[in-house]
Amino acid sequence: MRLTINKEEFLKGLLTAGHAVGPKSSNPVLMTLKLDMTSRGLEITGSDGDVAIKTLVPVALGETEIIRNIGEGGALVEAKKLIELIKRLDTAEVTLEVIDGTTARISGGNNVTNLPSIEVDQYPDIELEEAREAFEMPVKTLIDVVDQTSFAAPIKNSRPVLTGINLRASGGMLTATATDSARLSSKMVAIPENVEFTANVPAKTLSGLVRMFEGYESVRISCFPEKILFAYGNTLVSCSVLSGDYPVSSRVIPNTFNYFLEVNALELLSAIERISVLNIDRTPLVKLTMTRERVEVSAKNGQDGYAAECLETFQYTGERLEINFNSSYVADAIKAVRSQDVLISFVAEMKPFVIKSPKDDSVIELVTPMRTR
Amino acid sequence: MRLTINKEEFLKGLLTAGHAVGPKSSNPVLMTLKLDMTSRGLEITGSDGDVAIKTLVPVALGETEIIRNIGEGGALVEAKKLIELIKRLDTAEVTLEVIDGTTARISGGNNVTNLPSIEVDQYPDIELEEAREAFEMPVKTLIDVVDQTSFAAPIKNSRPVLTGINLRASGGMLTATATDSARLSSKMVAIPENVEFTANVPAKTLSGLVRMFEGYESVRISCFPEKILFAYGNTLVSCSVLSGDYPVSSRVIPNTFNYFLEVNALELLSAIERISVLNIDRTPLVKLTMTRERVEVSAKNGQDGYAAECLETFQYTGERLEINFNSSYVADAIKAVRSQDVLISFVAEMKPFVIKSPKDDSVIELVTPMRTR
Repeated sequence: MRLTINKEEFLKGLLTAGHAVGPKSSNPVLMTLKLDMTSRGLEITGSDGDVAIKTLVPVALGETEIIRNIGEGGALVEAKKLIELIKRLDTAEVTLEVIDGTTARISGGNNVTNLPSIEVDQYPDIELEEAREAFEMPVKTLIDVVDQTSFAAPIKNSRPVLTGINLRASGGMLTATATDSARLSSKMVAIPENVEFTANVPAKTLSGLVRMFEGYESVRISCFPEKILFAYGNTLVSCSVLSGDYPVSSRVIPNTFNYFLEVNALELLSAIERISVLNIDRTPLVKLTMTRERVEVSAKNGQDGYAAECLETFQYTGERLEINFNSSYVADAIKAVRSQDVLISFVAEMKPFVIKSPKDDSVIELVTPMRTR
Repeated sequence: MRLTINKEEFLKGLLTAGHAVGPKSSNPVLMTLKLDMTSRGLEITGSDGDVAIKTLVPVALGETEIIRNIGEGGALVEAKKLIELIKRLDTAEVTLEVIDGTTARISGGNNVTNLPSIEVDQYPDIELEEAREAFEMPVKTLIDVVDQTSFAAPIKNSRPVLTGINLRASGGMLTATATDSARLSSKMVAIPENVEFTANVPAKTLSGLVRMFEGYESVRISCFPEKILFAYGNTLVSCSVLSGDYPVSSRVIPNTFNYFLEVNALELLSAIERISVLNIDRTPLVKLTMTRERVEVSAKNGQDGYAAECLETFQYTGERLEINFNSSYVADAIKAVRSQDVLISFVAEMKPFVIKSPKDDSVIELVTPMRTR
């Protein structure tokens, strides 16, 4: 294997595939990047066992030659060292050559670095092919879906499936749901009619991966029983899905409500954030006291600590109601709705309540009240 | 105690004094800020026991009234909550009132927050007065002195005095020195003739404190047996010094040398940083091999790992010499010298060597070579 490659394009490819390589692995092969010099270009693959990324640096970009001096073949080279070296080289081109199958010699300018390399056949067999039913989605929409739900998924949970975002495609809609049992966030977007699948994708991993798509118009998504696959530009990204039954949100989201508060989102959010200061060092329990005439956000702390703030403008329908909640859950929910006003619908004092835009049901936030101490 | 105060100026004062309050303390009083409403203005004091900061928010700034509705008196209020609340209030003014000596009531807009307060006499007696021999120094110079030395002080050491920067004022010069025994960094600047003192100031703390002075022209420094005190604008900052004997640098810095390498700082630094990639996951041992004809930076890793790079332009005087060193120590030293070219002077293969500007002795960097494995 041999090639002389444009340094910037090489680095871009290494960083893309390197995104999948974890900081540590019990399997040293997963600390490497797989380099495959083919007639199409240089394929670079990285994986941590759960996420795998394969990207292609083409031989030419339009009229511009990117790779020359080509000898086909492959090698596995330690990801971190290769990336750091290429970053620090200040030449326009870099030459990489595999010697005796055990050494990757990288040269650029006066610098020659021999990094140990491993034979490509040691690399795990990673299937990265799009499904025939792949569908396209604007990158912006996918990022919104992830950002507006992922915060509600716990980092750790006794039910590992809850650490994922549940993606359900059916009847021309994709519904994303995340929940930690005490709150739930869901967002719905339109997709092509014929797509049907359910997948629980690790929330934290997915949040990181979708950032890679920024700058691209759209991404194609394929769903397999064991993984979900994203394709954009010259890059394929696959992510293992979580097994287990995901809770059915239609069973937890109430349908009929008895109390309704409509309020400017920013005003309520700011008031809640100010009142939360009183309990900044513990669970930020906040109380909302609502009548037709007056809506007050308040909190207590010990004997003397007390904070209260009335809202300026609101519209409340229903009898007097007091609700205690974790203010960070409600603040997260208001932010996720991304609407100028929010409508909060309550069933009863100790029943989960729903926060959404007054105009639009595409984002539904559910929060369970807390018992007062 | 009572006052109505411009919110932005109040916040500025709280953040300044709050800089001294640590995240945790076994003494709850040190988690508070001391507020003293006097005829001059609002004095705000914070301390973690080692660092103390007192700042004054004046009653007026020029023609602009900053504080009104004044009732003299004092209170101790939990720093974090007070700061977070004032940050989140979106009103131009805030009113603070102490009720029954146990509650500080803060009101702004519709928000009223009662934070528990403690009587001022519970606060430790902190003496914050400048010494008669205080001398003035440009803030920029003080920041340079700290930044060009502090990196060489270890975070922890069995000899706690080494975690400090040794400041020695004598004969019109201030010499700052930091060392972890394997390397030493020192910088010398001119000060008024009559100032004489020695102080070991915790390096990490000092690095943080000097950032506060940014934006001010100069700072006045007073040295006491137990502390060093900085005065700028309306603020006094004191920092306890470390006790113990600091090593005398003149005993460790050699005077006569046998080999000299003069080289472009950036070229040497870049080469060292590239070569270091080979051992990025362990002590980055790098070798410099010098003859009159050729200067090479190289490293080894295991049987096959090898990296080498020759410098383009250099001037070397002396016999052939090989020196092995920790590349991050040499990289830090080259950066601290802040000169286009550096002169490295060697005594022998295993003796400490000196890195400095060829033109100027104000910054002296000493690095001890490493034994090869």
